[in-house]
Order: sequence, then C-alpha cells, then structure tokens
Amino acid sequence: MRKAKAAVLYKPFDLRIEEVDVRDPADDEVVIRVKAVGICGSDIHFYKEGKIGKFVVEKPLILGHEASGEIVEVGKAVKERKVGDRVAMEPGIPCRKCEFCKSGRYNLCPDMKFLSCPPYDGFFVEYAVLPWDFTFLLPEGISFEEGAMVEPLSVGMQAAKRSGVSAGDIVAVLGAGPIGLCTLQVAKAFGASPIIVTDVVPSRLEMAKKMGATYTINAREEDVVKKINELTNGRGVDVTFECAGQTSTTQITPYITKPGGVITLVGVTSEEVYPMPMLEIAHMRELDVRGVFRYANVHALTVKLLGEGKLDAKSLITHSFSLEETKEALEFVDTNKDKVIKGVIKP
Amino acid sequence: MRKAKAAVLYKPFDLRIEEVDVRDPADDEVVIRVKAVGICGSDIHFYKEGKIGKFVVEKPLILGHEASGEIVEVGKAVKERKVGDRVAMEPGIPCRKCEFCKSGRYNLCPDMKFLSCPPYDGFFVEYAVLPWDFTFLLPEGISFEEGAMVEPLSVGMQAAKRSGVSAGDIVAVLGAGPIGLCTLQVAKAFGASPIIVTDVVPSRLEMAKKMGATYTINAREEDVVKKINELTNGRGVDVTFECAGQTSTTQITPYITKPGGVITLVGVTSEEVYPMPMLEIAHMRELDVRGVFRYANVHALTVKLLGEGKLDAKSLITHSFSLEETKEALEFVDTNKDKVIKGVIKP
Amino acid sequence: MRKAKAAVLYKPFDLRIEEVDVRDPADDEVVIRVKAVGICGSDIHFYKEGKIGKFVVEKPLILGHEASGEIVEVGKAVKERKVGDRVAMEPGIPCRKCEFCKSGRYNLCPDMKFLSCPPYDGFFVEYAVLPWDFTFLLPEGISFEEGAMVEPLSVGMQAAKRSGVSAGDIVAVLGAGPIGLCTLQVAKAFGASPIIVTDVVPSRLEMAKKMGATYTINAREEDVVKKINELTNGRGVDVTFECAGQTSTTQITPYITKPGGVITLVGVTSEEVYPMPMLEIAHMRELDVRGVFRYANVHALTVKLLGEGKLDAKSLITHSFSLEETKEALEFVDTNKDKVIKGVIKP
Amino acid sequence: MRKAKAAVLYKPFDLRIEEVDVRDPADDEVVIRVKAVGICGSDIHFYKEGKIGKFVVEKPLILGHEASGEIVEVGKAVKERKVGDRVAMEPGIPCRKCEFCKSGRYNLCPDMKFLSCPPYDGFFVEYAVLPWDFTFLLPEGISFEEGAMVEPLSVGMQAAKRSGVSAGDIVAVLGAGPIGLCTLQVAKAFGASPIIVTDVVPSRLEMAKKMGATYTINAREEDVVKKINELTNGRGVDVTFECAGQTSTTQITPYITKPGGVITLVGVTSEEVYPMPMLEIAHMRELDVRGVFRYANVHALTVKLLGEGKLDAKSLITHSFSLEETKEALEFVDTNKDKVIKGVIKP
Repeated sequence: MRKAKAAVLYKPFDLRIEEVDVRDPADDEVVIRVKAVGICGSDIHFYKEGKIGKFVVEKPLILGHEASGEIVEVGKAVKERKVGDRVAMEPGIPCRKCEFCKSGRYNLCPDMKFLSCPPYDGFFVEYAVLPWDFTFLLPEGISFEEGAMVEPLSVGMQAAKRSGVSAGDIVAVLGAGPIGLCTLQVAKAFGASPIIVTDVVPSRLEMAKKMGATYTINAREEDVVKKINELTNGRGVDVTFECAGQTSTTQITPYITKPGGVITLVGVTSEEVYPMPMLEIAHMRELDVRGVFRYANVHALTVKLLGEGKLDAKSLITHSFSLEETKEALEFVDTNKDKVIKGVIKP
Repeated sequence: MRKAKAAVLYKPFDLRIEEVDVRDPADDEVVIRVKAVGICGSDIHFYKEGKIGKFVVEKPLILGHEASGEIVEVGKAVKERKVGDRVAMEPGIPCRKCEFCKSGRYNLCPDMKFLSCPPYDGFFVEYAVLPWDFTFLLPEGISFEEGAMVEPLSVGMQAAKRSGVSAGDIVAVLGAGPIGLCTLQVAKAFGASPIIVTDVVPSRLEMAKKMGATYTINAREEDVVKKINELTNGRGVDVTFECAGQTSTTQITPYITKPGGVITLVGVTSEEVYPMPMLEIAHMRELDVRGVFRYANVHALTVKLLGEGKLDAKSLITHSFSLEETKEALEFVDTNKDKVIKGVIKP
Repeated sequence: MRKAKAAVLYKPFDLRIEEVDVRDPADDEVVIRVKAVGICGSDIHFYKEGKIGKFVVEKPLILGHEASGEIVEVGKAVKERKVGDRVAMEPGIPCRKCEFCKSGRYNLCPDMKFLSCPPYDGFFVEYAVLPWDFTFLLPEGISFEEGAMVEPLSVGMQAAKRSGVSAGDIVAVLGAGPIGLCTLQVAKAFGASPIIVTDVVPSRLEMAKKMGATYTINAREEDVVKKINELTNGRGVDVTFECAGQTSTTQITPYITKPGGVITLVGVTSEEVYPMPMLEIAHMRELDVRGVFRYANVHALTVKLLGEGKLDAKSLITHSFSLEETKEALEFVDTNKDKVIKGVIKP
Repeated sequence: MRKAKAAVLYKPFDLRIEEVDVRDPADDEVVIRVKAVGICGSDIHFYKEGKIGKFVVEKPLILGHEASGEIVEVGKAVKERKVGDRVAMEPGIPCRKCEFCKSGRYNLCPDMKFLSCPPYDGFFVEYAVLPWDFTFLLPEGISFEEGAMVEPLSVGMQAAKRSGVSAGDIVAVLGAGPIGLCTLQVAKAFGASPIIVTDVVPSRLEMAKKMGATYTINAREEDVVKKINELTNGRGVDVTFECAGQTSTTQITPYITKPGGVITLVGVTSEEVYPMPMLEIAHMRELDVRGVFRYANVHALTVKLLGEGKLDAKSLITHSFSLEETKEALEFVDTNKDKVIKGVIKP
C-alpha cells in the first residue's frame, strides 16, 4: 500500500502535515500523483469554521478539490487512461444509479461523494485515487497549475450551460472574484458580447478587462442598475450571472435583465434567506432564474477550450505554495483577497 | 358610429353606467357584441384603488378583460371571421414589430395595449373592437359564460407552457383561487399526476378535489412542506405552481420542489420585495424559477381543450350579474371570496 | 450456483429447451424469477435469420427482452429492492462512464449490453440477473403479463419524449402494430388530440380505436395524405410518429406534418436506404426529423402511468405460452400478424 | 410618386433596364435608396428558368433580395428609423397574424411576401419600400456592400440557431459555396471547433481556410466519411451542416454525425426525392435532422456580429456590377462558379 504526505484538517485552524495511506485502485480507478491543487473559498471556510452548512468536519479531513496530476497506476479494467497521462480531476463521484445520475444531472445525486467535503478526502495530498472517467487528459502545452484551474472554470462552464448563453448575447457578470472571472471567460468563449463586469475592487475589474470584459463597473462608484440600463439602451442584458454571492448583487439582478431574460445564480451566498424583488422577476419581466450547483458533464469541454486557447487559466493563478505551506497558504489567500485571484498548492 | 352602454370607472368606487361611442373597425378588426365578462381580482383592485403599480386610472376607464361575444361586423380585410361567429377574446394587443413580438413572446411587448388596463378600455361594455386574430372561435356546446373563462384558463395554460409540465410529473399548486384552479385544470390536461393543491379555505380545496386534485392540503391545519415531502417520499414535486401570490407560499416553494425541478410563479404578490431562500434555490437544489406574465400564443389551445372537455370552465363560474350591476358585482366578489370563484357580467 | 430452464437459440430455427447456469449477483445486482416475457419482432427475426444487421448469433443465445418477474435474491449492496419485489426489467445495461451514459442518453452507449441481442442472453429463462436500477417496481394491481409490456410501452414513451408531444397536439401514428399501439397510448397519456392512426389491417385499426385513436384511416382504402390534410384543414399534424417501418409510410411523413412540425421515426425499416422527399422536409416545411433508438430514462414513467391506468397493457396481450412452447410461440406470432398483437412467454 | 430605374425580368433571359413607379410608404414603412444587392443562386435560377418549383414569373418581376441601402423617407408612424439611416433589409414580409408569425417562426407564414419571389418585386432597383422593422441599422464601418451580405449570412445564422451549435462543438460544413462559407463563419462565431469543411473546388476550400475552417477536405481526392471519422477518432461530429444541396453530400450526413448529434439541412437540393439512409438516422444513431427555410429573428444578430468583426462580409464579395450590368452579372456569376463567391449589383 502506497503512503502519501497530506495536509490533514483536524479541527478549525488545526491543519497538520502527515503521512496517510493511499488505498489501492478498484478495477475502474486510477492512482494519480497530485501535482497542483487550487485553493477554493470553501477550503478556507472549512479550515476556519470546520463546517459549511450541514457538512461538518467530524474526523480528520484532507481538503482541496481543484486538482491536476499524473497517473501512476491504473486499475485492471481501465483502458482509457495509462500511466504517465497528465490529467485534471473532477472531484465529485456520484452513485451512477439514481434518477439524477442516469438522466445527466449527476451533480444532484443525493449520494454524491464530493472529495474535500466531509467525510471524503480531497487533494491536498501526494496521491489520490478516483474512477478513470473523472479524470480528463490535459492537452499538450497546458501545465499542471493550469490543469488545476479546470475545476473553477468548470463552474463557469456549468453556469454558461445552465444559462443557455449564446453568440451575441449581452451578458452581465456581477462579481469579479475567481468564479466571476471564470464565468466571464466562458461566456466570452460562447460568443457573448458585450460582457459587462461589476465588482468593488479595482484590481479585479482590471483583471476582468484583461480577460475580455467589454465594460467594467465599480459598484462603489457607479449605480450598477442605472449604468447597465444606459449601456443597453434601457433594454437590459440577455443573461445575468450573479457571481458575488452577495445579497446586494442578487437583489438587482431583475432590474438589469431584459424581459424574458435569464438570471443565473452562481455565487454562493452567506445569507440563507434575504429580500428579493420576486414580483419583478415573476410578473413584470417573466424572467428565468436558474441555480448552479457545481457541475455535470462539463469538464471535457473546459479542458478542450483550454487547449484551444479560448480559456486563460494562467492569468487566474497569482500565487503558489508547497504542500507543507498549506496552512499558511489558506491563511494568506483568506487575508489577501485584493491581491490573490487563485493560490495553488503543489504537493 | 355605434353607441354602447358601458360601466365606466371615473375614480375609486365611482363606477357609472353610461353610453359610449364604439369606433369603426380597421381593415383587420372585428366588432363584437360582448356577451360575458369575468370579474378579475385586478378589476376589483382598480375599482377600489384606482391603480395597480404604475398603471393609474387617469381618465374614465372601462374595466373587464375576461370576455366572450358574438361578431357583428368585420373589417374589409378580414376573411378568417364572419358575422355571427361566437368568440373568446384575448385582451392584450401587442405592437407586432418589436423583438418580443416577432420572436413569439409578445406578452413582453413594451407597447402592449392591454384592454382594461389604463388607458385602454376593456369589455364591461356592449360592443368592443379588436383585431380578428385576437378572437378565438368557441367550439360548439361552449356557452358565452364558459367562453369568458378562456382568459383565466389561459393564464394557467401559460403557466403550464412556461413550466414544461408533462405527463406523469408530480405537481404542487399552491393556492386554490381562480388562478390556482385554472392552473390545476391545465396541469391535469397535460397529464400531470399526482396533483397536490394547498389553500386555507376548505370550500376551495373541495372545489380543487372536484376539478382533479389528487391530494389537498389545508395549510392552516397541516405543515405543507412536511406533508408534500411525505407524499413524495422526500423527493419533492417535479413542478411547483405558486398561485396564491403570498409571501408565505412563495417562500416554501424550494423546499417542496425536487432538485433540478421547476418553480413557476403565477400568483401576483402584493409585496414587491420579500425574504426568499435563494441559497436553497440556487445551490442546494439547482432549481429553475420561472415567471409568468399574462400569456402569449395559448388561447387557441385553451379553447381547443375546452371544446374537448379537458377543461371545465362551467364549474369556475359561481355567480352572474347584468352590466347595470357591475358596481355591485365588483363589491360582492370582493367581499365573498369564500363563496365566489368567478363572477361574470353579462352585458 | 442456481440452475434454470431456458429456451436457447443455437442457429436459425434451432431453439432448444435446456438447463443453464445462473451466475451469482454482483453487489449491486438482483436475481429475478422471470414470470412473463413478451415476444418482439426482433426475437422472431433472430430466430429465423440468426442475425440482425451486425448482430450475429455466433454462440447459443437466449432471446427475449420484454420481461417482468419477482426478485428472489439481492446483492450485498442493494438497499433499494428486496426479495419478493415484483418488477419490470429494462434490458439494456450501459457502461455508465462514457459521454452518452453520463449525459443522460445511455441508449447510445457504444458498450451497451442489450440482453437478448448477441452475445448477451435475454429473458426466455427462469432466472435472470441484472443491476437493481434496471428493475422497476410494478404497482399494485399490475400483473406480470402487463409488466412484460413495460418494455414496448417504453419505446412509445421514448418516442413521445423525443417528439416533445404535448397537450392538444394533433398527432398521426402511421402503423398500428405493437409499437404503433404503444405510441398511440403514450401520446394520448400526454394529452395529444386528435390522434389519427393509419394501417392496412382492419383489426389493428379497430384495436387503435379501442385504445384511444380519434380517427383511423385504412391506407388500402383511402389516400392517407389527402385524408389527414382534410382532417386538419390543410395544416397538417403537429407530430407524426412513423411506426410501421415501411418505405411508403416514411415517405409521406413530410406531407402530413405541419410546417415547423416534428416527424418521429420509431418503426425499424427493413430497407437501409430508400427515396425520401428531403427537399420538402428541409426547406418547404423546415421540419424536425427525430430518430428513436430503444429508450433511456423512461421505464419509471411508463410503470407509473401504467399504475395510474393511463396506459392499457392488458389489451396489448392477445396470446400466452409456456417456456417449453417458445419455439411454437415464435412461429405462431410470426405467421398470425393479423390476430396477434403481443404474445407472452411465461417461464 | 417616385420613379426608379430597375432591372425587370420579363421571361427567361429577357431582363430589361427600365423605369418603374415606387409606391408611397404606408405609415409603418420606409423608402430606401438601394445601394448594394447580392446575386443569389435563386436569382440566376429565375433568370434562366422563369420559375422555381411552384413560384413562376407570370408578370414582369424585379429580382434581388440580398440588399442594403439608405433610408430616404419614413412613414408617418415610424419613430425607430430616420432619413439617412444606413440599413440592411430582410426581404420576407410575413402576415404577422397567423400561428407561425405570432409564435416566432414567421418564415413559415403561408402568406409570406418574399421580395424577389413572384409576384413580389425585389431589390434590383433604385428605390424600395418596406416596413421599418425589416430594416437593420448597419454599424459604423460596415459598407453597403458588406450590408448586402447580411442576408446570406442570416441563412447561416438561421442554420446555426436551428442546429443549437455551441462552444466547443465539432462541426462539419459540407459545401463551401456562399451558403457554406456563411454557415462556417457563423458556426465559428458561436465557438464551434474544430470546423471541417468539404467541397470539390480547391479555391473554395482555400477560402474556407481563410474564413476559419480548421480542416478542409477535397471530396474529389479523399473519402469524406473516412476522413471525418479519422479526424474525430471514430466519434463523428456534433453538428453537420449540409450546405451543398447535393444528393451525395446529404446521403453521407448520418455517417459523419455522432450518435445523438444534429444534421442541419441548409443547401437547397435540385432533386425533390432521393435515396437516404433513414435507418442509420432514425435508429442506429438516434439523430436529429433539422430543415432550414430562410430565417426568422436573426438579422439583428447577424448585423451585430458583423459590427463586432466576428463575421467577415468583405471576403465574401468578389465581384461588383452596376444596375445596368445586371443581365451580364447574372450570366457571369452563373458561369464562373470557381472564381465568384458573391457578385454584388450597385444600383
């Protein structure tokens, strides 16, 4: 049995580097030497709070779910991958048997094993094991660090797929954090134009510009609703992506979206319940509001567009750390939101 | 020029029966002898308040938009209708030229002339004029009173179309007022089953049972969320129709709808902004929330299903009044919600 | 290891009743005592020809894929089924890992194991083993014989789902053999109306009438294109289901379907290539033509509608046979197409 | 009343330059000084044959429907356009009242007045009159010649919309004539990749390369089915666009399209009926075949993408002619298919 060094969370702020056992692969699984793992807001949340909603860290847990690596062993039945393959990982393994799995929406599987979410270990570790079909071959020229960005970009991809965004659609992206920037990139790859991005941090808006935003609005300085209606001659945008997870940004979505348009809720709010102008949504504009929960069936497309240069993973990565620095990395990313887009752990 | 007796609203509570001019039809229009007009909650609202939102009664207005009648004259270019035709009317005349009209969602036309909504006169009048294509031939055996129900049933039809409800879908209808009952009927015609209807008025729940509800829940007596989850083995319904326009009913919609399911907002709330569990909608269940604003392209289908006996307009009508009694009718319907489903004026 | 009596096809016309081994269930599988198995045209084809297209009987094969039975053993990991459960079986087991499986169209899985199609044994046998999630609980009051009809009805269900047929759609079903009758029933359950059914055998048209056809047309006696255009006032039907698998019926589909309508090809033609009026399909009417290949994600709905009495499996079954009579049954069904709708083997 | 010089077709090969009357605009119409008109294959067909199918030139007819110009007069009710506006025209004016018009598919309107198709005059004339909403403002920097290409590009747009093509889809375009090249451009703007284009004329394949084809295949030199399956590792493309209107190209579409994929038929065949492998379409691959008839609701998007530089109208135009040269132009374009992509008349 393989051994691996891992960053293990015991309880809030108690993260230890230690050796763990790596189980042998089942027939349809592969063993991966983890090479790069992005740090997600949820990793930081678990690190600081020990839980997110109903998911509680009750026994030692390895965090990290935005990962890439190299295959070092394949199960007996695996023909589709081989030792040496460079891959990005999709971290949620569904049951494959329920109505959601079989109808193509496996992200809604009630028996989902989402790696890094208690009690399933994630990728802040040297070796990981998962079914071959949840690994995606990295195109030539795409580094492991970039490969670790396939996961957050896939959240943007799921948002785009759910929204039905298409060429020529006018799009608003509210929030230019990692998820907002990923969604912006994907919307652009789908041909959306113009793309309007809002945030309150100037450096993030600059980054948005660099990644393809047509217009940026600093919500501290301008009235977003007024400005977007000006930019669209009072019509509103075709598709709004709420990526900030703020009450204030979510509330304005109907006022910037054209009648019959689509609001896609991507950002995870900290408030469970908050005031919403449902009358405007439901009746004044006959809008569609669509939730986004992780992803299903999009990683292959993300990897493909990355390989074609239509997505820019490189610019998302601003900082990198060793596995031993995981604790420091989580704390650094948490306290430097203006500087960091994505930090990456390299086990 | 034709003259007609009409019930004209001057200001709140000031409704007068008087003679008005009837304009000649344009080439593509027909003149209709109005025979029956349902009383809608919005008629009562205008009668009592003189306005709904931005729509204000600034000059004398004829209310009433749920109407049927007999064609008494046709414009020069009309070949599709003839004198003597018995028709139901669709009361919203769009511009036919904007992006919404041309792409099939004319209910969102910014230049919509919705008859009975200021400043456009409605049907509490003996004669009315509108384009032939906004009249729908009543099938044999369907009375004018039933024909007046085509409009509210078409709201249910729009809700069904927007929701994508299909055979075998489990459906919840929250609210068993006229719109809830119409939506229930249409959902049943689309093959939905079982259909769960909630309300707080026992007589309405009985009516729902009579019109095809599989289960009814009195929200005063039972916990709706718990009960619906019991009835669906914890899965939730495929499609929820919010037809009560209440904060309390709208708020529970995500908790009774299955992951990946659809919430259709049909009821018009009196609150513009109210607390909503958006996190549950967006992320926990990846739901679709869809607004419903009036209707487009559904009246022909409503009339057809009515003719085939798949919709029951007759049971919706509980009271009828003459044109002279319009004031009394509005007040009676307003103050007898437990007894009245639909009151009908017969000019 | 269990032993079971089976009807084993060695080569064309060489079908032997003999004892076979029944493998033990894997952790997620169940063992079923087969109770009833419908005879499909493809069973007869294999029996007579030893092959269908690229699928060749190269080693002894058990036919039969329209089956129901009682669970007699469950694998270690199975919680969703128990001994004694009465179930209908879905006979195609996909790989669960390819792009088709994961996106909800597992019927297109290139590694599909379709039981009864070489080299995978079917259900003309006393015991069968398959994953629990390809078994569907029969509602109370539904017999095993009726349960065996879930499979052919699911072909109709797939056709309906693919077609998008909805309440009030005018439908034509060309061909009133088993698949046509199943499709007719499902279209009716989806609210389609009127439904026009064509065939050349009067007894089948009578059966169609009994099962809900609004109009029937004997193609030997009437011009189908002319008649359907008369019935629809020259407009054509919303959805056409080609269920006869004949060149002649397929060719007329565009001429009876309204512009922008849908043609669904359900019947399996014996001709691989034949003349089609593609210009009419593509340009004159901007039609949608949709293929139907078996089914995915529909058995649960079929079973549900059967339990609600919206589908009539009983009337489909006209003859039944013992397992020992399998050879005679195949030959009888083949040579009595005017009398037989469905023959059922009861092992 | 305005007078205008026009190229009028009297009968096959009899095309005369003469003065015609220009009617006054109705309230919702505009008068346009025509500036550039593309020559379409159908113009040539009418010129040579005097008819296309059921459309016969029975009285003198002005051809030409790919047009742009400058507004010189607006009807009384027109607020959305003004004198001096530079516009592209959409040449098909529907009735606005039938079920097709009102539901967004006005291209299927049975009362369509398609300008240049008998008996409705087209744009080989100095002045034309049409409803303002069938004119589309040309973005700055887009010339009138380029504006004339909005119409053929809109055929590609309709094809893309009908196909549902989206980012990352693998696409095959069969035929690199004007419609194939337009479709290629639009597919690229929608994010499709790779795009495989086939033809038999090397210069057209070079043009396809220039306009964004990833791979080109000369069908004279290579086996298209084999090559496309090689390029896609045996999977087939997501979306096939048949743009050649040939029996041979149409027949191969199922063999190059992945199971569950989409075949879009854009090219207009000269054969009404021809052999098609329907079994492969319907059952082996469960494909979707979608016709394309002109366009509806796409010109605004075409103009927008043109203005954003995502479509390249300029490269489509290879030759231009004066109005007086119309006859010579039609004959030149007809006999120089290897050299000409698009010829443009400039009245």
